[in-house]
Amino acid sequence: MIVAMRAEATDSQINHICDRIREFGYTPHVIRGTERTVIAAVGPGDKKEHIEQMKSAEGVEDAFPILQPFKLVSREVKKQRSAIQVGDVTIGDGGFVVMAGPCSVEGHEQLMSTADAVAASGARILRGGAYKPRTSPYDFQGLAEEGLKLLSEARNRTGLKVITEVLDTEDVELVAEYADILQIGARNMQNFALLKKLGEIDKPVMLKRGLSATIKEFLLSAEYIVTHGNPNVMLCERGIRTFETATRNTLDLAAVPLLNELTHLPVIVDPSHATGKRSLVSPLSKAAVAVGADGLMAEVHPRPEEAWSDGPQSLRLEEFAALMREIAPYIALRKSESN
Amino acid sequence: MIVAMRAEATDSQINHICDRIREFGYTPHVIRGTERTVIAAVGPGDKKEHIEQMKSAEGVEDAFPILQPFKLVSREVKKQRSAIQVGDVTIGDGGFVVMAGPCSVEGHEQLMSTADAVAASGARILRGGAYKPRTSPYDFQGLAEEGLKLLSEARNRTGLKVITEVLDTEDVELVAEYADILQIGARNMQNFALLKKLGEIDKPVMLKRGLSATIKEFLLSAEYIVTHGNPNVMLCERGIRTFETATRNTLDLAAVPLLNELTHLPVIVDPSHATGKRSLVSPLSKAAVAVGADGLMAEVHPRPEEAWSDGPQSLRLEEFAALMREIAPYIALRKSESN
Amino acid sequence: MIVAMRAEATDSQINHICDRIREFGYTPHVIRGTERTVIAAVGPGDKKEHIEQMKSAEGVEDAFPILQPFKLVSREVKKQRSAIQVGDVTIGDGGFVVMAGPCSVEGHEQLMSTADAVAASGARILRGGAYKPRTSPYDFQGLAEEGLKLLSEARNRTGLKVITEVLDTEDVELVAEYADILQIGARNMQNFALLKKLGEIDKPVMLKRGLSATIKEFLLSAEYIVTHGNPNVMLCERGIRTFETATRNTLDLAAVPLLNELTHLPVIVDPSHATGKRSLVSPLSKAAVAVGADGLMAEVHPRPEEAWSDGPQSLRLEEFAALMREIAPYIALRKSESN
Amino acid sequence: MIVAMRAEATDSQINHICDRIREFGYTPHVIRGTERTVIAAVGPGDKKEHIEQMKSAEGVEDAFPILQPFKLVSREVKKQRSAIQVGDVTIGDGGFVVMAGPCSVEGHEQLMSTADAVAASGARILRGGAYKPRTSPYDFQGLAEEGLKLLSEARNRTGLKVITEVLDTEDVELVAEYADILQIGARNMQNFALLKKLGEIDKPVMLKRGLSATIKEFLLSAEYIVTHGNPNVMLCERGIRTFETATRNTLDLAAVPLLNELTHLPVIVDPSHATGKRSLVSPLSKAAVAVGADGLMAEVHPRPEEAWSDGPQSLRLEEFAALMREIAPYIALRKSESN
Repeated sequence: MIVAMRAEATDSQINHICDRIREFGYTPHVIRGTERTVIAAVGPGDKKEHIEQMKSAEGVEDAFPILQPFKLVSREVKKQRSAIQVGDVTIGDGGFVVMAGPCSVEGHEQLMSTADAVAASGARILRGGAYKPRTSPYDFQGLAEEGLKLLSEARNRTGLKVITEVLDTEDVELVAEYADILQIGARNMQNFALLKKLGEIDKPVMLKRGLSATIKEFLLSAEYIVTHGNPNVMLCERGIRTFETATRNTLDLAAVPLLNELTHLPVIVDPSHATGKRSLVSPLSKAAVAVGADGLMAEVHPRPEEAWSDGPQSLRLEEFAALMREIAPYIALRKSESN
Repeated sequence: MIVAMRAEATDSQINHICDRIREFGYTPHVIRGTERTVIAAVGPGDKKEHIEQMKSAEGVEDAFPILQPFKLVSREVKKQRSAIQVGDVTIGDGGFVVMAGPCSVEGHEQLMSTADAVAASGARILRGGAYKPRTSPYDFQGLAEEGLKLLSEARNRTGLKVITEVLDTEDVELVAEYADILQIGARNMQNFALLKKLGEIDKPVMLKRGLSATIKEFLLSAEYIVTHGNPNVMLCERGIRTFETATRNTLDLAAVPLLNELTHLPVIVDPSHATGKRSLVSPLSKAAVAVGADGLMAEVHPRPEEAWSDGPQSLRLEEFAALMREIAPYIALRKSESN
Repeated sequence: MIVAMRAEATDSQINHICDRIREFGYTPHVIRGTERTVIAAVGPGDKKEHIEQMKSAEGVEDAFPILQPFKLVSREVKKQRSAIQVGDVTIGDGGFVVMAGPCSVEGHEQLMSTADAVAASGARILRGGAYKPRTSPYDFQGLAEEGLKLLSEARNRTGLKVITEVLDTEDVELVAEYADILQIGARNMQNFALLKKLGEIDKPVMLKRGLSATIKEFLLSAEYIVTHGNPNVMLCERGIRTFETATRNTLDLAAVPLLNELTHLPVIVDPSHATGKRSLVSPLSKAAVAVGADGLMAEVHPRPEEAWSDGPQSLRLEEFAALMREIAPYIALRKSESN
Repeated sequence: MIVAMRAEATDSQINHICDRIREFGYTPHVIRGTERTVIAAVGPGDKKEHIEQMKSAEGVEDAFPILQPFKLVSREVKKQRSAIQVGDVTIGDGGFVVMAGPCSVEGHEQLMSTADAVAASGARILRGGAYKPRTSPYDFQGLAEEGLKLLSEARNRTGLKVITEVLDTEDVELVAEYADILQIGARNMQNFALLKKLGEIDKPVMLKRGLSATIKEFLLSAEYIVTHGNPNVMLCERGIRTFETATRNTLDLAAVPLLNELTHLPVIVDPSHATGKRSLVSPLSKAAVAVGADGLMAEVHPRPEEAWSDGPQSLRLEEFAALMREIAPYIALRKSESN
């Protein structure tokens, strides 16, 4: 931790800060500059509470940490990248795994036809919402357990693994019975009760980045799950909220290689939610391969113009098949690079 | 709903859209322009699902709603502003109610000394977190039920009403036993499971605006609570996330008069979280009075330099007393205006 | 400047950094922590070029400044707030000066009727654009010198001082002949050629904050003008660009007291451009007084529904008169506080 | 244009709006809904001035355009993508052109060694700033004409074409004498005087997207240059400003395929300024190829740790050579797709 004193700070204020730093268990180093004094605190960690207390003290201009606040998810702690096993599917081993399916599970025919098609095209994991986080209470809220059962049936039928979102701590057990991967949506990235609960289950979790979450906050939310006992966390970049309105969100693809520097957890990209536009899914999927993502999540619907949610960004079945053909040479190219 | 067709849309595509609009229960009006055709759909509402389905259809450039999506919280539905009764305290009747207290409940002496002081200075409601939403799992997470008990003791001692945050659907009943107002924090503004649960209790709720929530989303989250049965909702503007780093968030004071145009619900301003800087709390509190807010939430701590959270923005006890003296003439001025 | 080394940095890398720091003319202080080494560089300033060079060096994790980069506009350099004299009008002496007028100068009748009315209502300065920065080349670009002449005529007629925007270095001399204050618009806040040119004239300048400019960048743009010779700079907060679309921009009122801490320059608030909505101008004007602004800029038009630009946010003549009556008691209250 | 009336609008207000619409030269179509009346105005264009006037009128809730405001740069006007010829280099013909060089021209050795190296690695265009837009007046402002002469010498020596930034209308002629492409920087994207001036020269222009510019504003700024006579405009996505601080800006790669849908102008990507981090340049360059960009602008410096600006994001000479090898198979793959 570094504490910068105000230009007019007194010696007694400086001494008081040094005493507090020692109370915290750090060693203070006073550096007297031409314009102001800076105190470096060397010690076991940069606790936020200590930094805030320093900021609140008399004579202090600012205080800030040197160390990153996340630990278990950090590559400083674990150099080797983590691979997550979901049955016979491995995420994070250098390959590229595709998760596809409808935004919402709407019914038997819709889900089964989608599942059959995406499996035939090469997806390994079926997505589909049974519990839907909807901005308006008047929008479709999901089929709940009925939706989970349909997902389960689709798994049995196709061999696809199933990922689905959980919204409430009270539903975690039920969802974990049916799903292979539990998803935490962007709006719940800082629902800490839910993060803790998912730290206690033995199924992999995919954590979506919050609409206005920094990379640091994103990793700290993952850290919640890991510190509570579940190491099988994958991250999903799905676009952040900016002033731009031509796309639904702004896909932050630089986050992918940056996360790969900072954390050993796998990173998935969701271009459907990020852009809200079907026509942008294919170019951004290729880009996701190119920047080193571990996989893709794409929305697919047999008839987007009848979808109960997210139709404008959903690929038709044949469009998804085309997408898989289009990204295949990029995946092959990336594979050849790493050899 | 307005559907704008692409310049090159065919007659058969236009006819198909008209058919779909009739299926939805609206009446289509086709307007052929010099450059493109626009179809207005007149009917019972602008359902998001219908708009998205139109966007997904062939030949359509864009589709957008005319009506606001929120209903029960809207001033179009209820012209008269709502006042919320919390024991003998009324929020939203034209007066200005101050909620004050520590960020976190840390212990007996800290809470009681703060409660005594803020009551003596004229606050009517005591704030204090027993369950703390913290970005890092390594930060203090709150005293939980022990904290609730301390808040209850402080109420008995001072006559202040108590507001405290609830983080999890599983804690709602417990928190409702102790608190007079339940707070939903910014990070949970779109925790829809929590919103629904708070719609089922008979205590008032204060909903904080999400870090990157639009006014429309904010009102739709309030609509969740009201449609689930609880009309006693107040809104809290607490700063939004922008590129500016000199303050913790950007306080959107224009949101207050805008909300007063759009909704009948009371609006509170929290300048402490919005700015993260003690020195900015007083000028922004005066401004909150001036723009027509119904109240203020301010963080107060007997010794901010020892606070376990949010010290830099917490007022000392005597600073809070000064704040109350400083805003008093603004409150009096506003009262005189409305007479 | 603080340089944080990577956890795995070698002694030879640390020594190399110390050598570079000495070359820059600073003294290095090496602090070896438990997890990483930090080097504090004490010296004459925190030059951005030095910080970037440190960031680029081998073994360095990050480097950051301790000192603020602005000097002449800083209150650390000049404690006393600056007042700017514009003929017999003083801006920044604790009073509250109102600038009002149409967005664009459209013609003789429009400008004269507005000028007469705003003068009668108590404004001291007439605003009006002769050169208009318009997003689209197809929008009205202003009357140019003809507009300047009309502004000059309005000044002679009413005694109001005149503020108008200059867009191009080539127009500075001409505009300075007619105007009492030259305005730099938000889109030109980092038009450094224009800033330098305005540093060379002897008329006051009002610098508007850029749409996505931080406070620090805003002050550095003011610093450009002052270092080039013109100390008479006032700042104008006019809203920043955020994700919110219900208002045109987000007015950052916290910037006013924050600027008052950081700089001695006067600060003006423009609620018309900030919100884009006529109905929000009055509450935010009161708030501008309450947070300590030195003045207000408001758009006024005799017939907003016929305005060539910015009609939705322009006050009618009688609405402006009402605004002046509404803010008067807030100005009086503020005056009484400072006595 | 669509005009939505307030729920309580009177017939006389509706008739007044229809009259105004006819005055503008449009034909009004009144659609009476269950909750409110909407008026569609069919006619020659959606002038912003008309939309604003409608918004300002009594009884109107909102008014909005149907048509895009840009014309000449639009693919609706010109379906075929534009290729720009710069000597023997073609930009926008489906190939991928690399522009590389130092942020600032610092001196003879620095520029010549960089130019030699980037030419040897396969770049076709040399970048280098002679006039530098710097946030602080205390930072290096560029070598001005001396820098231009060095760029010219480097061109003669290597055969590379030269791109360099112009900051001021007064410098346009001089810069156009030396440069092959004139660059407008992000901070000047809405410097309309400069845009107009560059519309009058016969050299190609590269327009960088503003830090908080929407796609629509970006295209309207390009439209300024084209309407003033210069059709040879290319666009450059260089990152937008968001709340994220881990990267300097957020590279909006979705903008590339979106621009390819909306405009026929070529699109370049600048990952160096977008991220501010050397290690992210290579993955994002591959992604730029994958999303369909027409070229790349990258910062290269022989010794980044001695660079006068932007060292942290500058590639070393051998890193640039590696980058060119790394993107080559992506370029080849893309080429094979289009065959």
